[in-house]
Order: sequence, then structure tokens, then C-alpha cells
Amino acid sequence: MSVCFPKLSRVAVCGGTHGNELSGVYLVRELQRCAGDGAHVNTLLCDTFVFPSPSGPISDTAPYEMIRSRELNALLGPKGSPKAVDLICDLHNTTADMGLCLIAYSDHDWICLHIFRHLQRQMPDIPMRYIHFDVSNKESYSLDSVGKHGFAIEIGPQPHGVVRSNIYTAMKFGVQHMLDWVRFFNSGTIFEGGFVDVFTMVKHIDYPRDRETRNITAAIHPQLQDRDFSLLQPEDPLFQTFSGETLRYKGKEPLYPFFINECAYYEKSIALSLARKRRVMIPAIRVDRT
Amino acid sequence: MSVCFPKLSRVAVCGGTHGNELSGVYLVRELQRCAGDGAHVNTLLCDTFVFPSPSGPISDTAPYEMIRSRELNALLGPKGSPKAVDLICDLHNTTADMGLCLIAYSDHDWICLHIFRHLQRQMPDIPMRYIHFDVSNKESYSLDSVGKHGFAIEIGPQPHGVVRSNIYTAMKFGVQHMLDWVRFFNSGTIFEGGFVDVFTMVKHIDYPRDRETRNITAAIHPQLQDRDFSLLQPEDPLFQTFSGETLRYKGKEPLYPFFINECAYYEKSIALSLARKRRVMIPAIRVDRT
Repeated sequence: MSVCFPKLSRVAVCGGTHGNELSGVYLVRELQRCAGDGAHVNTLLCDTFVFPSPSGPISDTAPYEMIRSRELNALLGPKGSPKAVDLICDLHNTTADMGLCLIAYSDHDWICLHIFRHLQRQMPDIPMRYIHFDVSNKESYSLDSVGKHGFAIEIGPQPHGVVRSNIYTAMKFGVQHMLDWVRFFNSGTIFEGGFVDVFTMVKHIDYPRDRETRNITAAIHPQLQDRDFSLLQPEDPLFQTFSGETLRYKGKEPLYPFFINECAYYEKSIALSLARKRRVMIPAIRVDRT
Repeated sequence: MSVCFPKLSRVAVCGGTHGNELSGVYLVRELQRCAGDGAHVNTLLCDTFVFPSPSGPISDTAPYEMIRSRELNALLGPKGSPKAVDLICDLHNTTADMGLCLIAYSDHDWICLHIFRHLQRQMPDIPMRYIHFDVSNKESYSLDSVGKHGFAIEIGPQPHGVVRSNIYTAMKFGVQHMLDWVRFFNSGTIFEGGFVDVFTMVKHIDYPRDRETRNITAAIHPQLQDRDFSLLQPEDPLFQTFSGETLRYKGKEPLYPFFINECAYYEKSIALSLARKRRVMIPAIRVDRT
């Protein structure tokens, strides 16, 4: 017994949605340079750049990001339409020590979950997790939500504006294995069912801030820094104030921290996110040959 | 026998010259908050922000950075004048794994070298080096060159736009020990002579770039990344191209690399800098009591 899906004829690999996350920028350029070297899948390689919601009216004076998001929705979507590409993989970096994560808006998209399991098996030396943001596809605003299937590949730690060879190489192998999987799938391989650990985001925690200025008054505690996906227990150290005091986690439920000290989230009031882990059973899948 | 120097009556500690290097920004704010708590030195605590050359005419439409640099030159200098503050310590962060470095334009400013040796002794767990940029004080354009004595404290690795507790704490202790040293000095302590290792910058190396687009075509080699101040030998790996090729160091002289993969230097065409190390004898010093 296996679940059938239509062939994944059009796959988009996108880099630069956040222009200072450089691994994806240089990887997409490199893939564009080598395009044609044995690529069996119809792969769109996109320089993207910042991507807010593609819906709503647009004026002549709209900012570049708005215009570009419209272009991308036309190129890769339109979102929710039969014309949308089959799979979008959007490449990101984080300053958090998260290893390689697939981030998706679904915990039951069997294509995404099978790709994740394939990457885990092919790259056993890279810490790898599947993160699920539990919002509806309609509410989701990310580039990968424009495709019929889609996810972000998020790799760190890498400072924004910097490219580190080890992180670039992990991303390169991740994308190659993802494209390999799509070729296997399209050519009729049956992928066995099994179990995958899924981290579902529960809530965000902001930095302690000064009441008047809203400036942060503490940094991530040194005992928590770089410990993404290590279970955070009630009363564990969370922050260290700039005067040296330790502030502790006051939640009642042990949860898994991630995006710990991500640069871009200071302005979003997120010092870290917390997830619940659970085991998801995924069915065997194969391409629909009818 | 000891060399005498006038009392260091006015000391400035500056943070934010590069606004996204956050340890100094938050440390100066914290010191301002605690100002008065037993500060025996007349310490100016400055929020600074970007600092180009303070000389030359200035127009009404000059950019903020130009105006701010004029203000700071008036506040802390004027550079080269008897009114200039006695000592400026300007706080910086780097994405390079450099530990704590004092960076100065002189290899014979005994005040700076003695402060360095004091920090080394007080903080034995922190890798610490003294970097000398061999340009005349007239040609130097940094904020610390405005004082009678001055240096930058550069600490990493920390992504720009992020504050890491361990880096913040190292900077805090570094500044406290520096101010302690000034108090000891002003109260008549004689500091014994001795030897200090000085790293004098010899040259910069740029990334390999595409001839037409000028885009970089390689990242720092994984075997060199995070190895600041480990001797680089001829034929050691230097870069790894985005297609996976290793490029090697073609210099004839073994030199010490630093500022390896510093974010802000991509646009300055600097992938890393190289230094020669030598041992400098520093004399005993004390305050001039006459």
C-alpha cells in the first residue's frame, strides 16, 4: 500500500530571499553556472530577494520587495493555482546553531517529509530537524508556500553577510540530495513508510526589555546559547542581563528551543522559539503512473 | 629606571562606532546606567556611531556619519591638540575568531602596551593579542587616534547585529581591567618592563573574484576558518571555491592570519589580513609626579 502523487515536473530552488543570507545566494549562482550538467529535473534556479505577502493591490510607488514578490508569485505560482510549480525549496541561513532544518507549514505533506528523511539518511553527520509552523497555507507568507509543495532549508550557524565553507557545503549537498530524491521519485521508486520526528512551534520568547526605551536588557544565557533543540526545562537559565544576573525559564512544560539568538529576529521581538516534539508516521509513497 | 608619563586624567570608552557591533553598544549603555558607582577615573562614556576622517570642510548636506565624526572630534579631541582626551578605548566586534585584540597605530606607545599586558595577566582564559597597524597617526582615521593614547578593543567571534553573552562579558572585564590599570597608574604604581608579542599587519588578501561581475567565487577554506593567529605556511589551504576546488597560499613567508572572514571587509576586498609577529621590549613606566 502506498500513497500516489503526481510527478514533480517543475522544481524551484531559490536563494537570496533574505539577501544577506549568503550560502543560498552563492549556491544558486553556482547551480546556474553549472546548469545543464546532467540536470534531469526541470529545475528553476531563482535569485529571489525579500518576499512579503504577494496578495493585495500594488501601487506604482510600491517598494522593491513588494514588486519582486509579485514577480515571483507570477513566475512560481500563482499561489494556490494549478499553474504553481510542484515544489519550492527556499534557501536560508541563521545565526542560530540549528544545523540543517527543513521548515514547512504542514506536518502531513508526505513529499516534504520523505525528502527530509532522505536527507537525514544521506547526510548522517549533519544535525537535521523538521520544523512545522502550524499556520494555514493561506495565512503563510513565505516564498515556499507559493508552490504545490514547499519548504525552507535553514542552515546555521552563519553570520548574515558572511559565507562559511562548511555551511555552504552542507547546503549544497542538501540541495543535491533533494534533487536526487525528486529524480528517484519521478522515475517510479517506491519510498517506504516510517516515522519522522517533527518539531511543532509552540511559542516565541522575547528578550527582557527596558519599559521605556524598549532596548533589550539581557542576552541569551551562555548555558543556552548554541543549544538549539536541547530540551529546555522549567527553571533552566534563559537570559543573562547586562549587569550579570541570570533569568530563568518560567514555563511549566519542557520544550525544545530553536532560533536561539537569530539576528533578524531582534526586531521581531523573538529571542528564541519553543517547540513540542512528536513522532509522525508517514506512509509509503510513489509517483502516480496513471 | 622607568619612563614617566603625565597622569591619564580623562579616559573615553566608546561603543557603537560601528552600530551593528553590539557588545560595545550595550556595554557603554550599561556603564552609563551604573555611572558614579565608584568610578575614580574621569571616564567619558560615548555612544559614537560610524567615524570617517574628521578633517576637511563639511557642508550642510553632509551625511550623518560626517557630522557625527566632527562632533566626536570636538568632544574627544581635537585630534593632535593638547585638549584631546588622554586615552580612548573604542569597542568593536568581529565575525572572525580573534579572541580579544588590542589594535593600535603604534608599537611603542608604552601606555597601550602596558594596558595590554595587564589585561593578558588578568584574563588568562581569553586568547589575547596586540595588533599594530603601521600607518602614521596623521594617516590613521579611527576614533581612537583622536586621543593622546588610544586603541580599539576588538572581540570575536560574534555576528554583527547579535550580542553573545560570552563576548559581551569578555569585553566588560577587559574594560574594567583597563580602567583599573589607569587608576593604579594614576595613583603611582610602577609597572615593570618586559616583553610583549606584537602582530604587525603586513598585507591583506582578497577573495578570488569573477573578472567581470567582481562577485566572489570562493569562501575561506574550512581548514583556515576560525584559525586566526595560527601560522599560515606557503601552500596551506586558503580558499575553497564554490565548485569545491582548494586554492592555496602562494606567499613565500609564513605569516599570521587574522580578521579571517570578517563580515564588514567583503566590501573592502579583504578576506583576511596577514601579520608578522615580533617581541617588543617595553620599559618600566610610572606617572610623572612633578
